[in-house]
Amino acid sequence: MRYHRIPDETVRRLPVYLRGLMVSANQGNTSISSRSLADSVGVNSWQIRKDFSYFGDFGTRGVGYDIERLAKEIKKILRLDVIRRAVLVGVGDLGSALLAYPGFGIFGLDIVAAFDVDPKKIGSTLNGVTIEDFAGIDAVKERDISLAIVAVPRAEAQVAADRLVASGVKGILNFAPCKVSVPRRVKVITLDIAMELARLPYYIPRAGRAEEPQQA
Amino acid sequence: MRYHRIPDETVRRLPVYLRGLMVSANQGNTSISSRSLADSVGVNSWQIRKDFSYFGDFGTRGVGYDIERLAKEIKKILRLDVIRRAVLVGVGDLGSALLAYPGFGIFGLDIVAAFDVDPKKIGSTLNGVTIEDFAGIDAVKERDISLAIVAVPRAEAQVAADRLVASGVKGILNFAPCKVSVPRRVKVITLDIAMELARLPYYIPRAGRAEEPQQA
Repeated sequence: MRYHRIPDETVRRLPVYLRGLMVSANQGNTSISSRSLADSVGVNSWQIRKDFSYFGDFGTRGVGYDIERLAKEIKKILRLDVIRRAVLVGVGDLGSALLAYPGFGIFGLDIVAAFDVDPKKIGSTLNGVTIEDFAGIDAVKERDISLAIVAVPRAEAQVAADRLVASGVKGILNFAPCKVSVPRRVKVITLDIAMELARLPYYIPRAGRAEEPQQA
Repeated sequence: MRYHRIPDETVRRLPVYLRGLMVSANQGNTSISSRSLADSVGVNSWQIRKDFSYFGDFGTRGVGYDIERLAKEIKKILRLDVIRRAVLVGVGDLGSALLAYPGFGIFGLDIVAAFDVDPKKIGSTLNGVTIEDFAGIDAVKERDISLAIVAVPRAEAQVAADRLVASGVKGILNFAPCKVSVPRRVKVITLDIAMELARLPYYIPRAGRAEEPQQA
């Protein structure tokens, strides 16, 4: 499968680079050195060059990367040139935060529909999106929506995923802290926010060691 | 630095395994095979065995892993046995969702304090935590808090990080879609939710290819 050849870790960093490029473009730049890009995104410049080597050579010695060209290429690789419309399932605290979140725009992503089971929420509008009854989720089939965000409690995550898959969704970002089972053709990324916090302590120096001199 | 020897990718998966073990323990199990653990967390069993090989041999052939012993060891490696108290900065939509999120408990993590700049929020209580004035953030120094969650708008993230570092925080989970600069001794994990959605389309089969037979 030719679109799976780039390592997952590189795929994970491509959106980081893309955001860095967009920020630089917004500042009026048309080219950027790998060093500047590295500084702005917090990734080593050798790592950036290695990641870019998977899909071609975009830098010009002494000039750097052409921002527009590189951003376009990254969008194409990530398929953000064609897949951009997402549906949100679950408009609780987190779902509401996601609907209001301005950060999707820089990637061309757009939450165009939202569903919930709560009659008090159904029909109300949040950030321009009217919340619909989850019972009618099948309707996303007709709306060119390939991506879904699942922000429901753990016990409802599998049902939400099943209905989304049946409605033609191909990729799910799951915030429920559990694995959801889907057919092989569907990709799920589970993002348990607690887990991100849980891996931080590993990197914190032990008390007593922090005061040691950096060089012997 | 001996506590940096385990690859980041393994550190990223350890909380996944830990959650799988806790779920299994809650179901009344005392041991689990690498195959069952693999199924429940959605990681290949060879990957699990490889990850565990970095810190010892916990499986017994035909019996599997002792859940309690392995969970304790993972917590120790992740330092979740000593570092557990976190402060939240920014109680907007996302911050409120995080304060209400029940998922931290499984890792022993606890958000024990929350700060905001909004006078309307300061003094109110959410999920048992009273929101304090960000101007007084230095007070976390006296409260044995090493972790922080930053859920403020992009423009305020660096200021929040600076004040947190000055207050003795050693690890920051940053939700603002930007890099924050901190001294080397402090670890920052930036989690841009839009970025997680942005890497999904890469894994979605192209139209027309999805119908191809799996085997030639």
